[in-house]
Amino acid sequence: MSNLFVRTLRDDPAEAEVASHKLLVRAGYIRRAAPGVYSWLPLGLKVLQKVEAIVREEMEAIGAQEVHFPALLPREPYEATNRWTDFGENLFRLKDRKDADMLLGPTHEEMFTLMVKDLYSSYKDLPLTLYQIQTKYRDETRPRAGLLRGREFVMKDSYSFDVSDEGLAESYRKHREAYRRIFDRLGFDYVIVSAMAGAMGGSASEEFLAISPIGEDTFVRSPGGYAANVEAVRVPAPEPIPFDDAPAAVVHPTPDSPTIDTLVAQANALFPREDREWLASDTLKNVVVMLVHPDGRREPLIIGLPGDRAVDEKRLEAAVAPAEVAEFGEADFARHPALVRGYIGPVKDGERVLGEESASKIRYLTDPRVVSGSRWLTGANVEGYHVADLTCGRDFSSDGVIDVAEVRAGDPSPDGSGPLTLERGIEMGHIFQLGRRYAEALGLKVLDENGKLVTVTMGSYGIGVSRAIAAIAEATHDELGLCWPVSLAPYQVQVVATGKEQAVFDEAERVAAELSARGLDVLVDDRKASPGVKFKDAELLGMPVIVVVGRGLADGVLELRDRRTGAKREVAVDAIVEEALALVQG
Amino acid sequence: MSNLFVRTLRDDPAEAEVASHKLLVRAGYIRRAAPGVYSWLPLGLKVLQKVEAIVREEMEAIGAQEVHFPALLPREPYEATNRWTDFGENLFRLKDRKDADMLLGPTHEEMFTLMVKDLYSSYKDLPLTLYQIQTKYRDETRPRAGLLRGREFVMKDSYSFDVSDEGLAESYRKHREAYRRIFDRLGFDYVIVSAMAGAMGGSASEEFLAISPIGEDTFVRSPGGYAANVEAVRVPAPEPIPFDDAPAAVVHPTPDSPTIDTLVAQANALFPREDREWLASDTLKNVVVMLVHPDGRREPLIIGLPGDRAVDEKRLEAAVAPAEVAEFGEADFARHPALVRGYIGPVKDGERVLGEESASKIRYLTDPRVVSGSRWLTGANVEGYHVADLTCGRDFSSDGVIDVAEVRAGDPSPDGSGPLTLERGIEMGHIFQLGRRYAEALGLKVLDENGKLVTVTMGSYGIGVSRAIAAIAEATHDELGLCWPVSLAPYQVQVVATGKEQAVFDEAERVAAELSARGLDVLVDDRKASPGVKFKDAELLGMPVIVVVGRGLADGVLELRDRRTGAKREVAVDAIVEEALALVQG
Repeated sequence: MSNLFVRTLRDDPAEAEVASHKLLVRAGYIRRAAPGVYSWLPLGLKVLQKVEAIVREEMEAIGAQEVHFPALLPREPYEATNRWTDFGENLFRLKDRKDADMLLGPTHEEMFTLMVKDLYSSYKDLPLTLYQIQTKYRDETRPRAGLLRGREFVMKDSYSFDVSDEGLAESYRKHREAYRRIFDRLGFDYVIVSAMAGAMGGSASEEFLAISPIGEDTFVRSPGGYAANVEAVRVPAPEPIPFDDAPAAVVHPTPDSPTIDTLVAQANALFPREDREWLASDTLKNVVVMLVHPDGRREPLIIGLPGDRAVDEKRLEAAVAPAEVAEFGEADFARHPALVRGYIGPVKDGERVLGEESASKIRYLTDPRVVSGSRWLTGANVEGYHVADLTCGRDFSSDGVIDVAEVRAGDPSPDGSGPLTLERGIEMGHIFQLGRRYAEALGLKVLDENGKLVTVTMGSYGIGVSRAIAAIAEATHDELGLCWPVSLAPYQVQVVATGKEQAVFDEAERVAAELSARGLDVLVDDRKASPGVKFKDAELLGMPVIVVVGRGLADGVLELRDRRTGAKREVAVDAIVEEALALVQG
Repeated sequence: MSNLFVRTLRDDPAEAEVASHKLLVRAGYIRRAAPGVYSWLPLGLKVLQKVEAIVREEMEAIGAQEVHFPALLPREPYEATNRWTDFGENLFRLKDRKDADMLLGPTHEEMFTLMVKDLYSSYKDLPLTLYQIQTKYRDETRPRAGLLRGREFVMKDSYSFDVSDEGLAESYRKHREAYRRIFDRLGFDYVIVSAMAGAMGGSASEEFLAISPIGEDTFVRSPGGYAANVEAVRVPAPEPIPFDDAPAAVVHPTPDSPTIDTLVAQANALFPREDREWLASDTLKNVVVMLVHPDGRREPLIIGLPGDRAVDEKRLEAAVAPAEVAEFGEADFARHPALVRGYIGPVKDGERVLGEESASKIRYLTDPRVVSGSRWLTGANVEGYHVADLTCGRDFSSDGVIDVAEVRAGDPSPDGSGPLTLERGIEMGHIFQLGRRYAEALGLKVLDENGKLVTVTMGSYGIGVSRAIAAIAEATHDELGLCWPVSLAPYQVQVVATGKEQAVFDEAERVAAELSARGLDVLVDDRKASPGVKFKDAELLGMPVIVVVGRGLADGVLELRDRRTGAKREVAVDAIVEEALALVQG
């Protein structure tokens, strides 16, 4: 350790919010080079290499073949699939000295597709699975939490190529199993959830989430085993309600009621219901946002949803992708005087005012709960007025459904098995059945058994390799520091020499040499520092087994510590190697 | 092989000029993704990983610690050392979504310097050597020869940090030894030559060149063991010549003599020498070039050198770096009417017209052979006139020496041991004593033994890892294809099953399994293809040992082939594993 390129820090780095980030920096595993861009110090790199080795083994085990594509890529293939534009500002673009457009690869579907097209031409060549462990680039709006959301990061990405849908399903199944083995070996507490495919295109898709309160992904689970990323949750639509004898819509003055809370209060005060109080869920809230399409076009969108629910930002982002969501600001309202802030509703004076076919021409989408026959208290498009009993299908309609309202614990599960619970997770892996989108865009066809050209169907499968390290650190750390599982620790054993006598340092080296000879990676803390500093550092660095060579040496005993449990015991000098080995091997 | 992601091509790729490039593409090791940017297929990646492993072992053996820096880097550190500008168009620059300037790292001196500054503060922490194996980017004007000169490439770069000059010399020596071991293990025929540091700054510097006729570097060797990159050759300056009784300079009409050849012919015809013929080496040629400085500033430069020698473009580039050399064109001549094309000389009518202090203010540098007292036949700055016996130090002088004339086989060696020979090589490694340039620019200081802050001195050491593969392929291939050394072959043995009987395929698998069990990497050609196709492919792919399972199997014999020598012999089925092993182990 006196030679190891590492320095521990007592203070948390200013920009760090989550424990794994703080600890990985404080323990000298990584350092920030730029926002979302990190350098790996020797300890961090050792963990990275161990994760890579596990991923490599399991990918080879399902017959995937390793290749390696460049990070610096030409524009053309991404142009052909429209992703040059669709990735929007998330793509790092640059020009070379000849003014050619290039990009830093965020993911490599195009390149793999073209490579297989280049080499293969027959159904006999398939199925095929290729993978790489490679550095990727995404210009995230908000790089966050150290390695958890970086702009330069290491990914394992693999791609399967099949002739038939059944073949794709089988390739997908194999990957799913390999991912389970990988995450089991990495020691994750994870859950597999249904996912939206987002900008990746394609149909079937699942995410492997490390369960963690600091995760950016929210997912739901039902008692019956349904699990989905919150972005993928589809709210069951209620049955339509007959509205033949529904009361007519009535406009009420509701002075000073621009929010749902003030509206409900005014309604209960000014025109109380007979059956019960007015509730926020009786109101139809109309939220205006601005969509920014990849080509830069700005389009207003109004979302109608029950007033007791907020729009979930991530569900909205996923629903409108590849468009991005921007605020509909003062200037936008000024340009659309028909939108009366706080009093927006689908109808004014009996005329529909929202929707592509209406006077405003603004697209209007509604929550799945806004079914035919449902009756709503909503804005009358006049300052200080709302309309009650506005009935869907009779008084108004929308341009379609948008399922972006917040999902709450206790909501009914789509599988009908009971209420949903909500948890948070870190996306560690993602598997997609891409289908034929990329093969079609780039012309990847092979001859089938009958000599007919058929388009290949693809899967795409990712693991965030650098992110996994943050997730593991997050899941395993304690208040003292990092706490690695044996399979990933940079060193399995840290031998701490305390005291000043040469005999102590000699014995520490001897124990380390014997453990090394037995196949372990061993770090000796041979620094001239106080025992307190050394113990604190050993706890911060997080090697699973600690051997202390100190005062007891004169009596022929050393101390063996289990970093995770904190358990300590004295072990005779002669027995230390076997005991430490046993502790490492669990 | 029926599953391996590889296809061999019968035709050379259109853009390939050199054998290694043609063969690596034809044999399915690499594919071009963009100019100077390559993808690694499974076979190529295996070779790359083997080279990396050798480099890693030898770096660890000298105590270097592995780290990993990002490729995407912020501008500021490179601004501090001026390299943001000095790299000119060779640097890939880009902006992120917040408009921050970033670059793709061409080399990482700045980042390593800052990292050590971040972690270390005392002389006790040094010496330190860090290294990484990492993807680098340079926007080469002319990417060339596949992996030999790419725009995205894999490099091992390491950096040493010492307090004293002696420490730096020792770190440099260790690297030099490690490089010798690495290149010995890679099987290179290499030479270590003195080199210019170029844009890297610093003083002592040597290159490891793979000797190859297709190399871009020219180097010289002397009988006494002197070896230098041609850019680094310093021409010994002759002794000054007394000129007290030298004849006066005389202007001669030399009609129609704008070239050295026509001038020499005219001189011999119109004013012959008494002692011997006029020779090209009696003339002083004045070559005008335009320097383009990194900040875009254009500066004319005139180089005076003996008329029998051309300016060597690479020596000139190295001498003026970080400025680049552009043509001094028609428009430039129009702007400088004092320069009479074909008749330029340092003096007109007895007045000095070249040099920063002269009327033209154009910088004038001369070859080391233009010593005080040397007499020259050169332009008189009047169309159709030259001046003879123009004497250096009496009639003209220059702003300094520039050593950029071509070096020729037979030139005297700087070590005085005899004539130089010229050869070509591929730059595989480069070691520099950088000194304190980067540490000074970025403020890397440590406390010395006396508690005084001292600036750290650095070395920088590179190996072109991906380039090495091309160089090895270039050095080892033959007319049939690639021909890998055992240490780097993707598979050490290729088992070729020929024929249609199942027994042949079964035996091929058995031999492969046994060889694998003995620790070898084995590829089985189990394709349904003709023996001719399989033999041709085996030769193209270049595994060192080939086992043929075919017709002889019925008689209990297989064929063992040595790819390099082409030697074939029959071996009994029972003996094949031992014989193949022996052949692999040499």
